[in-house]
Amino acid sequence: MPAADSSMQRDLSKTVATAPDWPTILAAHARIAPHIHRTPVLTSSSLNDMTGAHLFFKCDNFQKTGSFKIRGASNAIFSMSEQEIARGVVTPSSGNHGAAVACAARWRSVPAYIVMPRNAPKVKFQAVEAYGGKITYCEPTISARSEAAARVQAETGAVLVHPYDDDRIIAGQATAAKELLEDFADLNAVFAPVSGGGLLSGTCLGAQGIRTDVRVYGCEPERADDAYRSLTTGILQAQESSDTIADGLRASLSPRTFAILRERVSGILLASEEEIIAATRLVWERMKIIIEPSCAVAVAPLLRKGTVQALGLPPRNDGALPKLGVIFSGGNLDLSSLPFK
Amino acid sequence: MPAADSSMQRDLSKTVATAPDWPTILAAHARIAPHIHRTPVLTSSSLNDMTGAHLFFKCDNFQKTGSFKIRGASNAIFSMSEQEIARGVVTPSSGNHGAAVACAARWRSVPAYIVMPRNAPKVKFQAVEAYGGKITYCEPTISARSEAAARVQAETGAVLVHPYDDDRIIAGQATAAKELLEDFADLNAVFAPVSGGGLLSGTCLGAQGIRTDVRVYGCEPERADDAYRSLTTGILQAQESSDTIADGLRASLSPRTFAILRERVSGILLASEEEIIAATRLVWERMKIIIEPSCAVAVAPLLRKGTVQALGLPPRNDGALPKLGVIFSGGNLDLSSLPFK
Repeated sequence: MPAADSSMQRDLSKTVATAPDWPTILAAHARIAPHIHRTPVLTSSSLNDMTGAHLFFKCDNFQKTGSFKIRGASNAIFSMSEQEIARGVVTPSSGNHGAAVACAARWRSVPAYIVMPRNAPKVKFQAVEAYGGKITYCEPTISARSEAAARVQAETGAVLVHPYDDDRIIAGQATAAKELLEDFADLNAVFAPVSGGGLLSGTCLGAQGIRTDVRVYGCEPERADDAYRSLTTGILQAQESSDTIADGLRASLSPRTFAILRERVSGILLASEEEIIAATRLVWERMKIIIEPSCAVAVAPLLRKGTVQALGLPPRNDGALPKLGVIFSGGNLDLSSLPFK
Repeated sequence: MPAADSSMQRDLSKTVATAPDWPTILAAHARIAPHIHRTPVLTSSSLNDMTGAHLFFKCDNFQKTGSFKIRGASNAIFSMSEQEIARGVVTPSSGNHGAAVACAARWRSVPAYIVMPRNAPKVKFQAVEAYGGKITYCEPTISARSEAAARVQAETGAVLVHPYDDDRIIAGQATAAKELLEDFADLNAVFAPVSGGGLLSGTCLGAQGIRTDVRVYGCEPERADDAYRSLTTGILQAQESSDTIADGLRASLSPRTFAILRERVSGILLASEEEIIAATRLVWERMKIIIEPSCAVAVAPLLRKGTVQALGLPPRNDGALPKLGVIFSGGNLDLSSLPFK
């Protein structure tokens, strides 16, 4: 959120010195475009009626590996020199980032070491294995994961590809919103889920790089609301609990992503567990596409009566309903244990 | 299948006198285009790898009302004069055709009377009601349905809109394959599910109207194989059983659709219940789109090893793998009782 305090602004300008600039994002897009899909943008008259807006869904659930994560992972992996990447890549990830790193590493013909908690869902292991990733199992704690990743790194000489605290990742994730704004230049705002902030900070950079006045909102589970607390207090907050069905949104912002979001994001909207599940099901039923609960978080708040009106978007010159972009981040989930019955 | 026997050919030419000609299909397309979606065509590198072909999926699961049925229903309903349709429309249907008739009747601002068996799934009732259709419940037998429809017709003066034994319906259904061939002119063959034969005969007319030499294959559940038996014997056969999970494919060919198929279809491929369920799940997982089991029938046989090779398609001039179109017919099913666990 734009800060009122000018001293904070000064601090920020220091912190965001590393935020990828527009030429960096253009270069990222050129680098990854031969490997990824330019995903379609779908609309739904039912969801428009329900929200009082015209919604444009950027379907990265159709992306290679089933999520936007391949954008950042492939940008990072194709950015490295032969020498730098010769011994492979390593990442701690129980989710879509792990599969994306494994996939991009295979494209680059280098090994990928994915550190995963023993209790991750079976489908997540299968996805990583399907792309040829080598799995290291660890206990399901953050410290155990970091230690295991450091150990693998030391043993193999593989280079770390962090899920979000990395400008190359952020620049890659920025390409989804960039494509969306290229296709629909007059969107009033764009909504994306927020976890560690890689996608959301990339969405700010990608969308506002095309049109500076497009607003960007993050959407977050109530049960993993560190971004909301960090941005409303202006101080980076830790995740206190992460007991949410949105299993891709359990990470916390890093100083890097926090700094970008503080400058560029218009607000964080929260969604309850019930709203996340209902939104998942609604999109399946009405749009006939598969999105995972973490992805549904980006549309769930908009379905709550009055949300769109409460944003106070300036009226459009053409008198039309607000045009809102939504980044559909992924469609990977275990069809054997659906969040609804 | 092209008949070798010339006397059969002569018989056929009589029977198919009513098959909609190309100008009729063009007129149907112009009539319905303002109301329906031009649905996207999706591809999947996973499914290409599995089948040894390049597949192009025409996604009428994204169509208005969630299935291709709105194409035929809206063509029939917008074809009628004010006077003819003044008292509304009636149809016996427990499925997608009923919802489509209700939707198109609402567009035309006339009542729709849908005769449905008491034991139809709750979601089917909800869909018809959501479009403002008036439901008449009947016992779950074919004779009870026909009697109830006749009674409603007599009482209300509504006009019958048959699900497939109607040239206006066939001409409407033809627009899906017409769009597919317009977008991808060099397909070698197109696959569509077959039940009463409205979609499949329309697929022949729509595809071969664009390019005469494109082959068309029907796909049918083993457990409801009347089209297979009719076309292999050359004599219209009744459905003997219809105990299949593909609940949209339980009807039988009519003399009208049989005549068109006998002339134009290259073959009928069968799918077992297991293959139908596996294909449904595979498409959900890999393509992240929702298709109903009746729709998965069109891709299930292609996933059986050797099917594509056994078709004996002539090699392509460009040396590429065969390019095959698949009509994805619909995505309506009860998410509370999935065909897989």
